[in-house]
Amino acid sequence: MQKSFEVLGSARESKARRGRLTTARGIIDTPAFMPVGTQGSVKGVSPRELRELDAQIILGNTYHLFVRPGLDVIKHFGGLHKFMNWDGPILTDSGGYQIFSLSKLRKITEDGVEFQNHIDGARAFISPEIAIETQAALGGDIVMALDECIPYPSEYDYAAQSAEMTTRWAKRCKEANVQRSTSNAQRPTSETDSINSQLSTLNQLLFGIVQGGTFGDLRKQSAQAIVELDFDGYAIGGVSVGEPEEEMMRAVESAEPFLPKDKPRYAMGLGTPPQLLEMIARGMDMFDCVLPTRLARNGTAFTDTGTLNLKNAEFARDKRPIEENCVCSACRGFSRGYIRHLVKAEEILGLRLITLHNLHFYLELMNRARAEIERGTIDQFRKAFVANYKTRDETMIE
Amino acid sequence: MQKSFEVLGSARESKARRGRLTTARGIIDTPAFMPVGTQGSVKGVSPRELRELDAQIILGNTYHLFVRPGLDVIKHFGGLHKFMNWDGPILTDSGGYQIFSLSKLRKITEDGVEFQNHIDGARAFISPEIAIETQAALGGDIVMALDECIPYPSEYDYAAQSAEMTTRWAKRCKEANVQRSTSNAQRPTSETDSINSQLSTLNQLLFGIVQGGTFGDLRKQSAQAIVELDFDGYAIGGVSVGEPEEEMMRAVESAEPFLPKDKPRYAMGLGTPPQLLEMIARGMDMFDCVLPTRLARNGTAFTDTGTLNLKNAEFARDKRPIEENCVCSACRGFSRGYIRHLVKAEEILGLRLITLHNLHFYLELMNRARAEIERGTIDQFRKAFVANYKTRDETMIE
Repeated sequence: MQKSFEVLGSARESKARRGRLTTARGIIDTPAFMPVGTQGSVKGVSPRELRELDAQIILGNTYHLFVRPGLDVIKHFGGLHKFMNWDGPILTDSGGYQIFSLSKLRKITEDGVEFQNHIDGARAFISPEIAIETQAALGGDIVMALDECIPYPSEYDYAAQSAEMTTRWAKRCKEANVQRSTSNAQRPTSETDSINSQLSTLNQLLFGIVQGGTFGDLRKQSAQAIVELDFDGYAIGGVSVGEPEEEMMRAVESAEPFLPKDKPRYAMGLGTPPQLLEMIARGMDMFDCVLPTRLARNGTAFTDTGTLNLKNAEFARDKRPIEENCVCSACRGFSRGYIRHLVKAEEILGLRLITLHNLHFYLELMNRARAEIERGTIDQFRKAFVANYKTRDETMIE
Repeated sequence: MQKSFEVLGSARESKARRGRLTTARGIIDTPAFMPVGTQGSVKGVSPRELRELDAQIILGNTYHLFVRPGLDVIKHFGGLHKFMNWDGPILTDSGGYQIFSLSKLRKITEDGVEFQNHIDGARAFISPEIAIETQAALGGDIVMALDECIPYPSEYDYAAQSAEMTTRWAKRCKEANVQRSTSNAQRPTSETDSINSQLSTLNQLLFGIVQGGTFGDLRKQSAQAIVELDFDGYAIGGVSVGEPEEEMMRAVESAEPFLPKDKPRYAMGLGTPPQLLEMIARGMDMFDCVLPTRLARNGTAFTDTGTLNLKNAEFARDKRPIEENCVCSACRGFSRGYIRHLVKAEEILGLRLITLHNLHFYLELMNRARAEIERGTIDQFRKAFVANYKTRDETMIE
C-alpha cells in the first residue's frame, strides 16, 4: 500500500518537519491547521470562504453530528462532505472528547460509554466499533480511534488504567476498521453506495491516540502500545484540558520520541499561535483548535504581536486594518473602527470579518512555518515570533 | 440641471413604469428594491455579496447610525460609503420613522423632536435642518426630508395637522439643502473634504414624503403640497404601519395621481412580494423592506409559491434547494435539509444562506418585473404571480 505520509524535510535545531499527507480528497501540506466545523459548519464561514482561505482540511465533530442532525440524516444526504458542500479532506474525531466533556450521566465500562446527550438527554452508547461505524457513515477522510479522555488533574493510577483501556479500545477500532474495509471491498457495489462513500471507506486513514495524562512514563507507555498497533497517524490526546503549559509540553515531549517519524503527529485541540510553533518544534504536524473562530465571535482578533479585543474603545476611530500587511478579505476592505462598530452593534458581519481574519492568520502562520522549515530557518522564526507575541488572558481556552 | 430620473416605458393596463434613476455613484434601474443596511451593514451580508446579488442601491438608517457609532465617527472615516466599504448608491432616511417608533420620551414641536435614544437614553434633538445636516455628513446619494410619522390608527384631525407640519418641515429641509449645496459650491475645497463627500454633497438627491394617514383627501392634499415644493423624488410614508392592506393600497392610490410622472415614487417600508407587484402596478418605483433579511434570520425563505419555514421537520431530509431553478449561491450549493440543520443548530451559515436567497429572490423579482414592463406583459405577470403566491402569517411585518 502506498504510504499516505511523506516527510519532505526536517529542521536541524528542533524536531520540526515539513510533510505531505495524501488523502482520497486531496493533499495536506504539514504542518497544517484544521479549522473546526463542529456542527457541520465552520462557524460563520462558507465552504467558498474556506477554499479562498486555502484551508486544505477541516475537522468535523462526530458527537455533535451524531446528536444533531443524526447519522441517518447525514447518510441520507450521502455523507458529511455532500451535506455541507465541502469536497476537500475532512478529519472526524471519534466523539470521545465531547462525550466525556459535554454529555451527562456517563457510565464507562470495558465495552464502551453510556451517555445522555446534552441537547435533549436521549440515551446513547458508544463503543470502539460504533465509533468506527459512525465515522464511516460520516465519510471522513481521516478518522480517529475512540479513546477515554480523562479530566485534569487525574490520579496516577486512574491515568494508567485509562491509558491501558484506551489501548484496548484502539485495538478494537483497528480491527473494526479492517473488517469494514475488507467487507466493503468484497461486496458488490449497489446503487445506494454513492461514489463518495465508496471513496471514503476504501481510503479512510485511521489515527490512534496517545493518552497518559501528565505522567511522562504513562505517556511513553501509551505511545509505545498505540504504535505497536500500527495506525496511519498518531495523535496526542488529553492535552490542553486545563493543565499548565509546561505540563502540556512535557506530555508531548514524553510521547514524541516513541512515535514513528514517517507518520503524521496530530496534537489535538491545540493551540495559541506560539503554542503551535512550539509544538511544531517538538515534532507535531497537525492541529485543530476553536480559538480563531471562537475568539472572533467575542470580538478578538489575532496578530503577530498578540490579540486585539476589537470591542475596546481605543479602536473606535482606528482606520487601520486589523493587521497591517495582512491580505485577508477583512484587512483588505475594512477598518478596525468599522469592525468594532459591527461587533458593538451585534452585526453578524463583524464576527464574520474577524473569523475570516483569524483563520487566515492561523493558516498563514502554518504557511510561513512550512516555508521556514524548507529554508532551514524555522527555529529563528519561532523564537522571533514567540518573543514578539504578547499573550493576553483572553486566549485562555474556556 | 440634468434630470436624474427618466421613464423608459409604461404599462398599458396599469400604472407600472420602467425607469432609470441616475445618482453620483451609479444608476438604479426601476422598479428597484433596496436592501436595508440598518446599522451600516445589511444584516449578515458583505458588500461583496451585495455586488454579486446585483443590488444597485442600499438603504442606511440615519437614526441608528446617529445613535451608534455616531456622526463624528462616520465623518472621521470619510462618510458612510467608506465606513462600510460600499461604493454604490446609498439612500438614507431622515431618522424620523425610528424616532417615532423606537425612541423614548418624544416631545414634538414645530421646531422638531426631542427624544431619548433607545440604546442608552441619551437626549437628542432632530429638526428638518439637523436631518439634512446629518444626512449630508453620512454622504448618502439620496436623502429624505424629515416627516412626522403618525401611528395607526390616528384621528382625522391629528393626521391632518401632522401632514401640514410635515409639509412645513419639508420646505425647511429643501431650504436647508439648497443652502448647503450653495455654500459648498462657493467655499474653497479643503484637504478635509474627501472627494467622496464633495461628490455626495453636490449630487445628493432629496426626496419629499407624502403623509396623511389612511384618509384619501389628506393624502391628496399632502401630495399636492409636497409636489409644489419640487423634490427630486416623492415617497409615500406612513404605510405598512399596521393598517389593513386595502387601506394601504387606498393611501397610495389617493396620493399617486398627484405625483409627477417624471419623478421616481418610493413606497417606504414595503413590502411582501405580492405587495411589491401591486405597488408597481399603482405607479411606485422604489421599495425598501426588512422582510427578506429579517425573516431569513427566523429561518423563513421566500419562493414563488409563498414562504417556507425551513425549521419545519418536513424539510429535515429534503435534498432540494430552497427553490428549484433559483440561481442564488444558497440554492446552487446547499439543500433545504442542510440549511434546516444549520438553523436548528443556530449556525450562522444558516441565516447567511437564507438571507442570500431571500435578497436574490426580491432583487430578481424586480428584475423580472422590469423585463415584463419592457415586454408589455407586466399585468399578466402580476396576476399570475399573486395567484400563485400563498401568503402565510409569518410574513406579517412585526
